Amino acid sequence: MRVVDLIRRKRDSGELSAEEIKFLIEGYTHGQIPDYQMSAWLMAAWIRGLSAAELAALTQAMLHSGKVLDWSEFPARKVDKHSTGGVGDKTSMVLAPVVAAAGLIVPMISGRGLGHTGGTLDKLESIAGFNVNLSLAQFREALAICGCGLIGQTEEIAPADKKIYALRDVTATVDNPFLICASIMSKKLAEGIDALVLDVKTGSGAFMKKMEDAENLAGLMVETGKRMGKRVVALITDMEQPLGRTAGNAMEIAECIEVLNGGGPADLRELCLELSGWMFFLGGRTPTAAEGRTLAAEMIASGRARDKFREIIRQQSGDARVVDEPQRLPQARSNLAVKASAAGFIAGIDCEKLGIACGVLGGGREKKEDAIDPAVGLEFHCRLGHRVERGATLVTLHYNSDARLDEARHLVESSYRIGPGAPTPRPLVHKVIGG
Amino acid sequence: MRVVDLIRRKRDSGELSAEEIKFLIEGYTHGQIPDYQMSAWLMAAWIRGLSAAELAALTQAMLHSGKVLDWSEFPARKVDKHSTGGVGDKTSMVLAPVVAAAGLIVPMISGRGLGHTGGTLDKLESIAGFNVNLSLAQFREALAICGCGLIGQTEEIAPADKKIYALRDVTATVDNPFLICASIMSKKLAEGIDALVLDVKTGSGAFMKKMEDAENLAGLMVETGKRMGKRVVALITDMEQPLGRTAGNAMEIAECIEVLNGGGPADLRELCLELSGWMFFLGGRTPTAAEGRTLAAEMIASGRARDKFREIIRQQSGDARVVDEPQRLPQARSNLAVKASAAGFIAGIDCEKLGIACGVLGGGREKKEDAIDPAVGLEFHCRLGHRVERGATLVTLHYNSDARLDEARHLVESSYRIGPGAPTPRPLVHKVIGG
Repeated sequence: MRVVDLIRRKRDSGELSAEEIKFLIEGYTHGQIPDYQMSAWLMAAWIRGLSAAELAALTQAMLHSGKVLDWSEFPARKVDKHSTGGVGDKTSMVLAPVVAAAGLIVPMISGRGLGHTGGTLDKLESIAGFNVNLSLAQFREALAICGCGLIGQTEEIAPADKKIYALRDVTATVDNPFLICASIMSKKLAEGIDALVLDVKTGSGAFMKKMEDAENLAGLMVETGKRMGKRVVALITDMEQPLGRTAGNAMEIAECIEVLNGGGPADLRELCLELSGWMFFLGGRTPTAAEGRTLAAEMIASGRARDKFREIIRQQSGDARVVDEPQRLPQARSNLAVKASAAGFIAGIDCEKLGIACGVLGGGREKKEDAIDPAVGLEFHCRLGHRVERGATLVTLHYNSDARLDEARHLVESSYRIGPGAPTPRPLVHKVIGG
Repeated sequence: MRVVDLIRRKRDSGELSAEEIKFLIEGYTHGQIPDYQMSAWLMAAWIRGLSAAELAALTQAMLHSGKVLDWSEFPARKVDKHSTGGVGDKTSMVLAPVVAAAGLIVPMISGRGLGHTGGTLDKLESIAGFNVNLSLAQFREALAICGCGLIGQTEEIAPADKKIYALRDVTATVDNPFLICASIMSKKLAEGIDALVLDVKTGSGAFMKKMEDAENLAGLMVETGKRMGKRVVALITDMEQPLGRTAGNAMEIAECIEVLNGGGPADLRELCLELSGWMFFLGGRTPTAAEGRTLAAEMIASGRARDKFREIIRQQSGDARVVDEPQRLPQARSNLAVKASAAGFIAGIDCEKLGIACGVLGGGREKKEDAIDPAVGLEFHCRLGHRVERGATLVTLHYNSDARLDEARHLVESSYRIGPGAPTPRPLVHKVIGG
């Protein structure tokens, strides 16, 4: 088998066998196939696409490039959620305790903020002492004790993905549904889960801004997961505006605690119930997703989810007092109101810009090695379709340094479009794929 | 300027500016841009193609990656011919002395055999002592004294092409008209020529088997050369059967000497006159190509071309006695006749297979480091449309070792298709592009 023939076949829109794809991925992971051949193949795959069989084989090969976790010692089903990322997208901190509180196992491996979007790991680290870098032995212990662990990517999991992603990043082959699907699914399935709920965001704050792109990616991921014997469903959810009332690491943790206390913003609460409902259903805990929703609401109402969150934080060495005293979370020293320049309806929000503004305040990274300020962020006072008067506060900026405050303010100001009429309301969940 | 953005633009079928292409080629040649980014760009360019402006810019950047030779000290026009390669394609050894004998300068930089095709350098080296590795100073001296030099690619000429070609070879990006055009034209224009005649082969023994592919490549090369201020014409010539009567290094030299003596096979003689005619016309030596043909015939009839060939060989340290005593050329010890298995007409020839058979006998290389046996080769007795009896000799194999004789014989046998009727005759020159 010669690599150059596999590149040529993909270049000419042909199909590779599972064995050929395995040869390619194994050879690349072990350094036998050089970067320059892999990047030529990736570009051919980017342009020509992959068949369903090729995509499954690619995912499988990347999945098996490292350790595939095995939790068969735990009788309960293992279930997780993955989001493609957005602004104010903080559901993991609600879902994990809700689902674990009802007896399923949630071995959740999450990421850091990427581009304009926040990351679960960064949010968790705003809780003093919280350790996301558990060893696999500690992860296993967390699952045994709490039914849940929240950790970052380890070296052992899907090393092919790590190496390929770094190459894609510098060869303009990132933004492709097939390659994104293989990357996400290989990592998620390496967690050793039985079922996966995908939250595929669409809108101005999502990576897939167009609905059709989101649906396409969702379809590929569901199909790939099913081919690999997993129960998978994808919800296409709205990201034309931030989810909930805040974007910023500690502020988002506080908001999740509100939801676990039975309160919180309606959209965040609703999406958490919906996603938990599907997790319960796919995890075999309830016969339908609707009954799953009810169970999730019970877990919140009874306080069991909140108790579970305390337990998880403690297990991972964090200060669990924040659950009852959220003021212990880092607080920014200063704030500034960004006001409406005219009266009217909120007709449009450039949600990606809001995410960038949060990063500019110090809540995200521009380079890998940048430090994050967990306290800073944006507080949103108006949603799409709200009527505002001139001078009404749209967003409060919470900041510690005014070094780039003007830049952040300008970004936020220019994110809001105020018009004479309310836009057509958009549903929170556009579609369920594979349900 | 970021390389990843240039890759993305080409991936998305966009156009790069001349400055951007220069940045890419210079950066790659100097090792600032890594192989893996160049290979991704090359694959995108292979699939998406290049605009005429991009192709000219690419050729220009590759041309200027090294030394561009300057022969302005010689008042006569500098003219060359390039062939895309075939079987028995030996015109250079006739054209160079014919054109130089009439006063034009021929600074010819040639290649070695590639795949099933022979190479001018290998053929010349079958003349004892002939040195194709002249320094640039020696090349200049040869041009000053003989008006002609026949050498191989040097390190100084178009180093970008050398580096890019090596990368294309292992990333399945060789067979693309845009990249082939830039490769050929950058090297040829670096020779410091005013005019170039392209011999673009089409048929079973050519790289471009289909007429439309040959025409497409020819069109690109003519257009690119003209954009760069050169006089360029392309002849689409037939390669459905070998050119002349032999394929094999020393045997082809002998055949060229026959032509220089006023004899030789009709097709070879005809193509040499036609190509010289265009070289004379483009070099400003005659007002038309037809008059150029007449001048070429005169150079042969008068013996001046043959004298020039002796002079060239002597200048490059070769044994010039071969011109008058061709039996001094290496001769194979043994020969074997491959005979017709049935009576009928020669209805088809798989000319590429004949080229491979010549290589199998030792006349070509399978690996770069293989040595060539200059004496071996094939002697063709029948052309397309000839009527043969069963048992008539089709080809004589001239060989020194019978290690792979059976393989060569089998290849030759299976190359000829004998049928009940003669095929439609094909012209030797199908088309002239840019004339």
